[in-house]
Amino acid sequence: MEKEKGLFEVELYDGGKKKSTSMDKIEDKVGALTLGGGGGDDASSGHSGPQQAAEFSKTKGKEKYSKLFNKTSICDVVQKGSSLAEQGDSSENCDDEVLLTCVVCGWVKTGRVAGGGAFAFIELNDGSTPVNLQIMVTKEAGSASGVEELKQITSTGCSLAIEGDLKRTPKGTKQKFELKCTKIAYVGACDGATYPIAKKKTTFEFLRSQLHLRARTNTISAVARVRNALALATHLFFQQNGFLYVHTPIIGTSDAEGAGEAFMVTTLPAQADALVKGQALLSDEELASLEAAASAAGGEVKEAKTALKEDPKNPDLKQQVAQKVAVLLASKEKVELAKQRRAQPDGFLRTKDGTIDYKKDFFGLKSYLCVSGQLQGEAYACAMSKIYTFGPTFRAENSHTTRHAAEFWMIEPEIAFADLQDVMNCAEDYVKFCCDYLLKHCADDMAFFNKMIDKKCLQRVKAVAESSFARCSYTEAIEILEKEAKRRKGKKKFVNEVFWGCDLASEHERFLAEEHFKCPTILYNYPKEIKAFYMKLNPDGKTVAAMDVLVPGVGELVGGSQREESYDILAKKMEAAGLDASEYGWYMDLRKYGTVPHGGFGLGFERLIMFTTGVENIRETLPFPRWPGNAYG
Amino acid sequence: MEKEKGLFEVELYDGGKKKSTSMDKIEDKVGALTLGGGGGDDASSGHSGPQQAAEFSKTKGKEKYSKLFNKTSICDVVQKGSSLAEQGDSSENCDDEVLLTCVVCGWVKTGRVAGGGAFAFIELNDGSTPVNLQIMVTKEAGSASGVEELKQITSTGCSLAIEGDLKRTPKGTKQKFELKCTKIAYVGACDGATYPIAKKKTTFEFLRSQLHLRARTNTISAVARVRNALALATHLFFQQNGFLYVHTPIIGTSDAEGAGEAFMVTTLPAQADALVKGQALLSDEELASLEAAASAAGGEVKEAKTALKEDPKNPDLKQQVAQKVAVLLASKEKVELAKQRRAQPDGFLRTKDGTIDYKKDFFGLKSYLCVSGQLQGEAYACAMSKIYTFGPTFRAENSHTTRHAAEFWMIEPEIAFADLQDVMNCAEDYVKFCCDYLLKHCADDMAFFNKMIDKKCLQRVKAVAESSFARCSYTEAIEILEKEAKRRKGKKKFVNEVFWGCDLASEHERFLAEEHFKCPTILYNYPKEIKAFYMKLNPDGKTVAAMDVLVPGVGELVGGSQREESYDILAKKMEAAGLDASEYGWYMDLRKYGTVPHGGFGLGFERLIMFTTGVENIRETLPFPRWPGNAYG
Repeated sequence: MEKEKGLFEVELYDGGKKKSTSMDKIEDKVGALTLGGGGGDDASSGHSGPQQAAEFSKTKGKEKYSKLFNKTSICDVVQKGSSLAEQGDSSENCDDEVLLTCVVCGWVKTGRVAGGGAFAFIELNDGSTPVNLQIMVTKEAGSASGVEELKQITSTGCSLAIEGDLKRTPKGTKQKFELKCTKIAYVGACDGATYPIAKKKTTFEFLRSQLHLRARTNTISAVARVRNALALATHLFFQQNGFLYVHTPIIGTSDAEGAGEAFMVTTLPAQADALVKGQALLSDEELASLEAAASAAGGEVKEAKTALKEDPKNPDLKQQVAQKVAVLLASKEKVELAKQRRAQPDGFLRTKDGTIDYKKDFFGLKSYLCVSGQLQGEAYACAMSKIYTFGPTFRAENSHTTRHAAEFWMIEPEIAFADLQDVMNCAEDYVKFCCDYLLKHCADDMAFFNKMIDKKCLQRVKAVAESSFARCSYTEAIEILEKEAKRRKGKKKFVNEVFWGCDLASEHERFLAEEHFKCPTILYNYPKEIKAFYMKLNPDGKTVAAMDVLVPGVGELVGGSQREESYDILAKKMEAAGLDASEYGWYMDLRKYGTVPHGGFGLGFERLIMFTTGVENIRETLPFPRWPGNAYG
Repeated sequence: MEKEKGLFEVELYDGGKKKSTSMDKIEDKVGALTLGGGGGDDASSGHSGPQQAAEFSKTKGKEKYSKLFNKTSICDVVQKGSSLAEQGDSSENCDDEVLLTCVVCGWVKTGRVAGGGAFAFIELNDGSTPVNLQIMVTKEAGSASGVEELKQITSTGCSLAIEGDLKRTPKGTKQKFELKCTKIAYVGACDGATYPIAKKKTTFEFLRSQLHLRARTNTISAVARVRNALALATHLFFQQNGFLYVHTPIIGTSDAEGAGEAFMVTTLPAQADALVKGQALLSDEELASLEAAASAAGGEVKEAKTALKEDPKNPDLKQQVAQKVAVLLASKEKVELAKQRRAQPDGFLRTKDGTIDYKKDFFGLKSYLCVSGQLQGEAYACAMSKIYTFGPTFRAENSHTTRHAAEFWMIEPEIAFADLQDVMNCAEDYVKFCCDYLLKHCADDMAFFNKMIDKKCLQRVKAVAESSFARCSYTEAIEILEKEAKRRKGKKKFVNEVFWGCDLASEHERFLAEEHFKCPTILYNYPKEIKAFYMKLNPDGKTVAAMDVLVPGVGELVGGSQREESYDILAKKMEAAGLDASEYGWYMDLRKYGTVPHGGFGLGFERLIMFTTGVENIRETLPFPRWPGNAYG
C-alpha cells in the first residue's frame, strides 16, 4: 500500500523488545509531527512535518496507559503546578525557574496569536479537570516542530501533544503559571469554520444535536465528572455497608402493570419485513401453479430414481437424481414460503382475535425493557440479605418535560430483615454520603456549577451533607398543609386541594421541604390507595409503609417502602389491583418459602445529578439522552 | 381492617421519638414471634406465638440498615468467632465461655432434630459468606419463643432470626463453635414438600427454572459474591487509573452492521394491536354510513347554532349547541379511527415497498438495543481522555451454546492519545488486577469453586495474577501454528487449516495459550480482512492494530484495537465494508475535529466470571439470564 501523507505513523509493536529505550523516545513511536484529521481534501489535512531529531524529554508520564506520548494529565499538572508556584512565590528571581517538565495532550479551548505572530497563547483541556492549562508557544518552537503557522494550532477543537516547561507567569497576570512549549509532537487539525461547537456561547438545546462533541464543552464535561463521582460514591457507600451489587435483567416479560410505558423488545418486525420483502403475496392460482411445479419435480425425482434402480452404478443417473432432488427441495421451499406469506399476509403471525402472536418471537412471548429491577432485587435480597442494583431503566412515555428521559439509570437497594425505618436510615445516609463525596472530590466542578449554572447548588449540597433529614408521616403532613392552605390567600393559594388521601402535588412537597421543614424531608406511611400493590400494609389497615425523600429544589428524590411479606395480604392486594397472580408466581414464592420482612428504595440517578449541580434538564445529565423522536449518536 | 393472625406486626414508625429505647428491644418492633409466609391456608401459616417478655440482648448489631433485628451478618460472626475460638483454645474449662452474644438472621440450609426432640441443629446462611453458621436450639428455648415443635424450624428454606451465645463446641467436633440459641424472634415458614430447591443435590439446568430462588444455593450465591467482587474490582482499577465511568446508551439506531443480531426496541406492535383490537375493519359502505352520520351531526350543530343566534341568551339552546358539538366531535373521531384502520389494515403504517414504516415509532426510526458502547465511548474519550463503560449489551443470536446469552455485561475502556501497546498494557493490568482482587477478597468463595466446580481454577487465577502475558504478532502465531500443524499427525491434527489470513479457531488459540506459551497470550496485528472497519491500518497496509487476549481454559477473553484516526482511511474502509457513511457522520466527525490516536478494548464480564470460577455455562453467571425462549423471572 502506498504510504499516505500526514498519517500518524507508528512502528509496529515489537513484542516489547524495544520497550526500555522506546518509552523515552517519542520519535521511535510517533515518527514525526503530523497534522491528522480534517475532512478529506481540505487544506489542513495531509500536512506532513519534518522528522524531528531532538530527543524527547526523559520525564516519565504519570499516565500508565498513555505511554505513547508519556503524557501527564492536565489535572495533575495544574495541581502540582499550583503547589510548586506557591512555594517559591516570595523570591524575586524565580520567574524563569522550571517548575516541571512534562507532556500534556488535549484539545484547544481557545487560542490566539500574539506579538505580531511571534508567539501564541493556548488554553488546553483534556477533560481531567475544569481548569484549562495555559500554553505559550513561540514561533521558533512551532517551526522547529514543523508548525509553520502558529494559527494552525490556535483553532478551537484541534488536538495537541505538547512538551514544555511549566514556569511562573509575571506577577499580576491572571494565570499563576503557564507551560512554555518546547516541542509539539502531534496536531489533529480542526477547521474552525465548520466545527459545530467552535463558538464560545451556545445553547444546551443546540448541543443536544452534537452529542458526540458536547463533552468537550465546560458544562457537559463537568457533568461527566460529577456523574462519574456520584457513580463511584454509590458503589463505595453500598460496598462499605456490605451490600452486593446485582445486575437485574434489562429484558423481561413485565409491561409495568400494563401502563403502556414499557418498550417492547422483539425480533418479529424484522422477520415480518423480510417475509414481506422476500416473498410476493400469491393468488390461489399462483400458489396452485407453484404446487404443480413442485409436484412435477416430485414426479421427475421418481422417474430418475426408477432409472437409477435399473442401472445403480451409472454415475450420470446418480447425478441426475441428485439434481432432481435439489430442484424438488427448492420448489417445496418456494411453496412453503408462499404459504407462510399467505398465512401471514402482513408478515406477522396472528392470534384468533387478530392481534400479533408472539410465540415465535425471540423469547417466545411479549418482552419488554425493564422499568425497574425491584422485584428481581427482592429475590436476590431474599437470599443474599443486602443488595443494590445500578443499571439502566426505561419508560416509553411520550413526555417532553425537562424531567423525563426514555432511558435513565436507577439505584435500587433492597434489604432483608429490615423495616421502613431501616430503609429510611439507609436512604438518608446514602444521599448524604453522595453529597459529602462530591464536596470532597469534585470541588472544582462544584465551584463551576455554583458560578455558572446555579448559585445555590453548593449551599444546597452542603446543607444536605450536614443536616439531619426531617421525618413526618403523611397524616401529619396533611395537617400541616391544611393549616397552610387556610392561611394562604389569593395568588399564593395551593392550586391543588389538600385532603387526607390526596396524592401530594409538587407545590405541597416543595412547601414542606423548602418552607416548613427547611431541609430534606422524609414523608412516610401513605394511604394505601395511592401507592403500589407490593408495599406493606400497616396495622392501621389504611396506610402502607412507604416513604418518599423530598429535597429542596427538586422535590421527590427517593421513593421506597417496606414490602408486603405476607402471602395472603399480598395476594389480596394483587387481586384488588387487578393483577394476574399467575404472572407473579415467582414473586409470590418469595412469601411462600422463608418470607422475611424486607424493604428498599429507588433513586433516579439523573435526579441526583440535577439536584447536586443545578442542571435543569435531564438531557444534559445523560451522555447520550434518548427522548421521543431522538435516539441519535 | 381485622387484624390477621400471624402477621409480622410492627409499630408504625414514630418519627424517631422512641428511637433510644426501642432500638434495644426487639419486642417493641416485632411484637411477637410470628410464623410468616406459607401459601395461603396451609398449616404453617397463621401461627401466632405468645408475646415475649424477656428483654432482648443489648448487643448492637453491626449492620446499620437491619436495626429491626439488631443483627450481625453471619460473615462477621464466623470471622470473629474463628479468631475468638482460637484464642482460648488451650485452656480446658473454657467450653462454656460465651465468645459472643449476637442476633443472626438467614435461611436454613439444613436442619435436624436430635436427642429425641430435645434439641435441634441448624445450618443457617444469610448470603454474606459461603460458610454456614451452626445453631443449636433446645426444646426449652424454642417453646419459650413460641415454637412448639422444633421440626418447624429445621426445614430447609425457612427464615429465622435467632439470638444466641456463640460458644466453643466440644473438642473433636467438626465445627469449632456454634450459636446456642437463647431466643427465636422470627420465623418465615417454608414447606419442604413443595420448596423447589429443598433437595440437596440438583442440576444447574433445573435451577434455571428457579431463578428467583437459586441464589440460595451454594454455587449461585458464590457466583453472586464473585460477580460483585469483580464488578467492584473493575471500578477500582479504572478509577485508580483516572478513567471516567461513562454510561453509553442502551437504545440506539445501529443494527450492528445489519448482522441481524440486534433486538428491535419499538412501541409500534402495541399500537398496532390496540388499533386492530379497538377498531373493526369497515367496508366502504360502513365507512360511508359513519361519514353520513358525522355529516348529519354537523348539520345538527349548524341548526342548533342558528337557533342560538336568534336567542343568544337562552341557556337551553346554549346547552343544545354544546351537546351537538360533542356528538359531532365523537362521530368525527369514529370516522378518523375507521379511516386509520383502513389505511393500516394490519395496524401498521407501511412504506411503498410494503415494509413497516417506523416514522411514527417512539424514536421516529428503527431503534435497537446496543451490541456495544464502543463508538460512543470513543466520542467521550475524545473529550475526557480516558473513559470506561460497564453496562449491559445484547445479541439477538439464536444461539443455545454455553457461551452465549441474549443479554450480558461488557466493560469497554477507551483511551485517547494511546496506541495499541497502551491498550495491551491496560488490558493485561486490568485482568491481573481482577484476579489478584479475587484471591485477596473472595478466598472462601474461590476455595469453594476450586473444591466443587473446577479443581484448576485457583491455580489458573493465581497464575494470571502473577505472570506476565506473552505477546505475539498474528504473523508469528501463524508460523508457530504451521510448524505445529506439520508436526501433528492422526487424531491430534488441527481440524481447521492454518494459513496467513485465516481466522484463528478456538483449537489454535488454546494451543497457543495452553501448550505453546503456557500463559495468557496477547495476539496482535491481525490481517485487516478479518477485523472490523474501525481498526487502525498498520503501515504495512495488510494488518490492523488489533489485539486479542487469550487465556487458558476460556480462549478469547478480551478483544481490542487502536482505532483508525485518519478520516480518509476510515472513509475508504467504510466504503469497502459497504457501510453507509451518512449513518456514521458523527463518528467521522471525531476524525474531522481534533482527531487523536486512540484505542480500547472490550471484555465480556461473564467470560471473566467463567474464567475465574470454572463455571461452565454463562447462564449460571447472570442473576437472571436471557436466552432464546427464556425471559423468565
